[in-house]
Amino acid sequence: MKRLTGDASDVLTALLAERKQTQEETKEIEEQVKQIIQTVEQNGDQALKNYSKQFDQVVLTDLAVSEEEIEQGYQRVEPEVIASLIAAKENIISYHKKQKQYDFFDTEKAGVIRGQLVLPLERVGVYVPGGTAAYPSSVLMNVLPAKIAGVKEIIMVTPPTTSGIPDVILAAAKIAGVDNIFQIGGAQAVAALAYGTESIPKVDKIVGPGNVYVATAKKQVFGLVGIDMIAGPSEIGIIADDTANPVYVAADLLSQAEHDTLARAILVTNSKRFADQVEKEIEQQLKTLPRKTIAEKAISDHGRIIIVPTLEAMFTVMNEIAPEHLEVQLSDPMSYLHEIKHAGSIFLGAYASEPVGDYFSGTNHVLPTSGTAKFYSPLGVYDFVKYSQVTYYTKEALAQAKDAITTLARKEGLEAHARAIDCRFN
Amino acid sequence: MKRLTGDASDVLTALLAERKQTQEETKEIEEQVKQIIQTVEQNGDQALKNYSKQFDQVVLTDLAVSEEEIEQGYQRVEPEVIASLIAAKENIISYHKKQKQYDFFDTEKAGVIRGQLVLPLERVGVYVPGGTAAYPSSVLMNVLPAKIAGVKEIIMVTPPTTSGIPDVILAAAKIAGVDNIFQIGGAQAVAALAYGTESIPKVDKIVGPGNVYVATAKKQVFGLVGIDMIAGPSEIGIIADDTANPVYVAADLLSQAEHDTLARAILVTNSKRFADQVEKEIEQQLKTLPRKTIAEKAISDHGRIIIVPTLEAMFTVMNEIAPEHLEVQLSDPMSYLHEIKHAGSIFLGAYASEPVGDYFSGTNHVLPTSGTAKFYSPLGVYDFVKYSQVTYYTKEALAQAKDAITTLARKEGLEAHARAIDCRFN
Repeated sequence: MKRLTGDASDVLTALLAERKQTQEETKEIEEQVKQIIQTVEQNGDQALKNYSKQFDQVVLTDLAVSEEEIEQGYQRVEPEVIASLIAAKENIISYHKKQKQYDFFDTEKAGVIRGQLVLPLERVGVYVPGGTAAYPSSVLMNVLPAKIAGVKEIIMVTPPTTSGIPDVILAAAKIAGVDNIFQIGGAQAVAALAYGTESIPKVDKIVGPGNVYVATAKKQVFGLVGIDMIAGPSEIGIIADDTANPVYVAADLLSQAEHDTLARAILVTNSKRFADQVEKEIEQQLKTLPRKTIAEKAISDHGRIIIVPTLEAMFTVMNEIAPEHLEVQLSDPMSYLHEIKHAGSIFLGAYASEPVGDYFSGTNHVLPTSGTAKFYSPLGVYDFVKYSQVTYYTKEALAQAKDAITTLARKEGLEAHARAIDCRFN
Repeated sequence: MKRLTGDASDVLTALLAERKQTQEETKEIEEQVKQIIQTVEQNGDQALKNYSKQFDQVVLTDLAVSEEEIEQGYQRVEPEVIASLIAAKENIISYHKKQKQYDFFDTEKAGVIRGQLVLPLERVGVYVPGGTAAYPSSVLMNVLPAKIAGVKEIIMVTPPTTSGIPDVILAAAKIAGVDNIFQIGGAQAVAALAYGTESIPKVDKIVGPGNVYVATAKKQVFGLVGIDMIAGPSEIGIIADDTANPVYVAADLLSQAEHDTLARAILVTNSKRFADQVEKEIEQQLKTLPRKTIAEKAISDHGRIIIVPTLEAMFTVMNEIAPEHLEVQLSDPMSYLHEIKHAGSIFLGAYASEPVGDYFSGTNHVLPTSGTAKFYSPLGVYDFVKYSQVTYYTKEALAQAKDAITTLARKEGLEAHARAIDCRFN
């Protein structure tokens, strides 16, 4: 595992240089994706079927997954998995309900009402990745906040496979309350949701993680529809001193590293001795991991142990990293909460292991990556609402505001704006 | 003014066809912008100076505007304009303060704490357009919500001119509390804020309207930094029946139309007689407008009078348009608030003329355009904060959650996730 040692500023210089390197050009992918989007916009369902044949080696007659298929898939899933999904669902709902926002009205000035309405999006598309593993937990994380926000129609898309959509994905969709499932994936699925086709209704916003084609497509349709965020490789940052248990820290770093070879596991500590212990533990634990090859490559390519002299420097460095997941494995972790400026999801203490958040606690696991926690938030209920401002003025209130409005309008050279006010008093 | 008459579905079909036409390809601009961004990323300040010379015909020695220049500009502005800006500022602050959100913590389950921190962005860039008119009101609208959110550093950029930055823009920046002003504009300004240069610090988010180059650049750097929204031409939609005053309605439509030739002024009514009156009034009022040529072209190209049979159809059509500004000029307008599903800013009744919101009421005038009110919100305090989730578990609480977590982790094939939990109980 690569080590960076020094004071906060040395380490940050090195880290920022590394980050810059990874923001590579993906021009070729951009062109391909643009082509796919145009084709879907023009040819609709037929284009989707052609792409399924080409990219997924699946010949589709129906894009929609039927109610019956969903029910059958649900029935085939092990009862303990269903029970765990339902337990997770309850926690996700109880957490996300607290994010619900309410209209406000302000009547401070005579004759003036100003307000803000919180209105749900009407129709949302959720992208659920296919590929090597099926992630039913992600279905819950993407769909349930939209339900709580009051979204009327939730459309799920997921790549087709020759053996159909995995049962557990269908089960999660049913448990979460998805309205319609279509078996399409990749950039073509994003295009279908953004423009609509004969079978697939146009949505107002597209959420959910995907590979680089999906991410690029989301960026290209951004503005025509809303999107959640551009997801990069998964990350964990752990702040720990030598009061922490190296076994736990190593296990948590590995839980991130097993996601894929680009995943980033970063330990920031003030103890070389502790760093050595964690590194030894990682080697030990790696040996018996089923996804050893993936985790080993992720740790070797992107794993970092950062050793800085002080607790203060540990937080300075970690705030600059702005990790997707942040564990604080210090004694009395609550006392450091104020030091954290940027992180998607913060896990405090020895027992808030990051997988608690992936599967159970109810906080969202769709989180900002690659330092974007500096400006993005976890997926939440707020992603599925938008606000409308409301203004009411009486004639008397407008009379009082008249001079300021017309002065500014005329200063900006917008005489018709000024006259719109003046004409009400002629 | 072009008329569309029929029932809601006829009118919507025609409207959607029109909207589709206007989503043209801007491939050439995309390529130019990409080139500009790369050049700024590589050559920093020197690239910015070269572009200023090339695009703005201004040879700059300093990119930064000095404290002294700002103060001098402020001093040259008429006192009544300063007073009006300060009055507007107070209203903007009193409205936006109500958008402030607070951390929450949830301690419902024994041994479990879940929470959400609301944290301000650190550094934000505000783009203030140059060109034919100076809009000090936009400076207030972009900067004040960021101040209320607690953003530490606000950088303003605005295109250079041979006669310097307009005094009133400098005055508005001083009143709003901008930290630094740089005289750069266009795609190069967006690139500088996204990547940072020798003089200009990298920001976390870029907000503010601009021309098509600015909008394209914002879209291209989206993901590397946050952006507010992609702004299109300004719009007003007015819902009015024959109880409304055609003089007011015409004046309000024209106040939008004078912005630029692409601006969209749309009346939706159930009365042909009222439509005729408004159209006559528009002709009349146009005659003496200083920006007659612009407003006339906007009305003729993009103005629409939509006549549908019922009040219900009026709202159905307007919700599909999802206008940036929506006026409801019906008697008892409050009673229709529930009918409005999508609009950036809603103005109720005969005296809430849209310029009230542009200059004075305190609601924001940076609003979603081109139907994006279906998923975007007005600019607000929420644009300048992001959330961090917080999770704390005791060992006992984790023991209760253990089975659900490991069941789901193993079902997803992520053994290291399961072991991260298990190892805490070995």
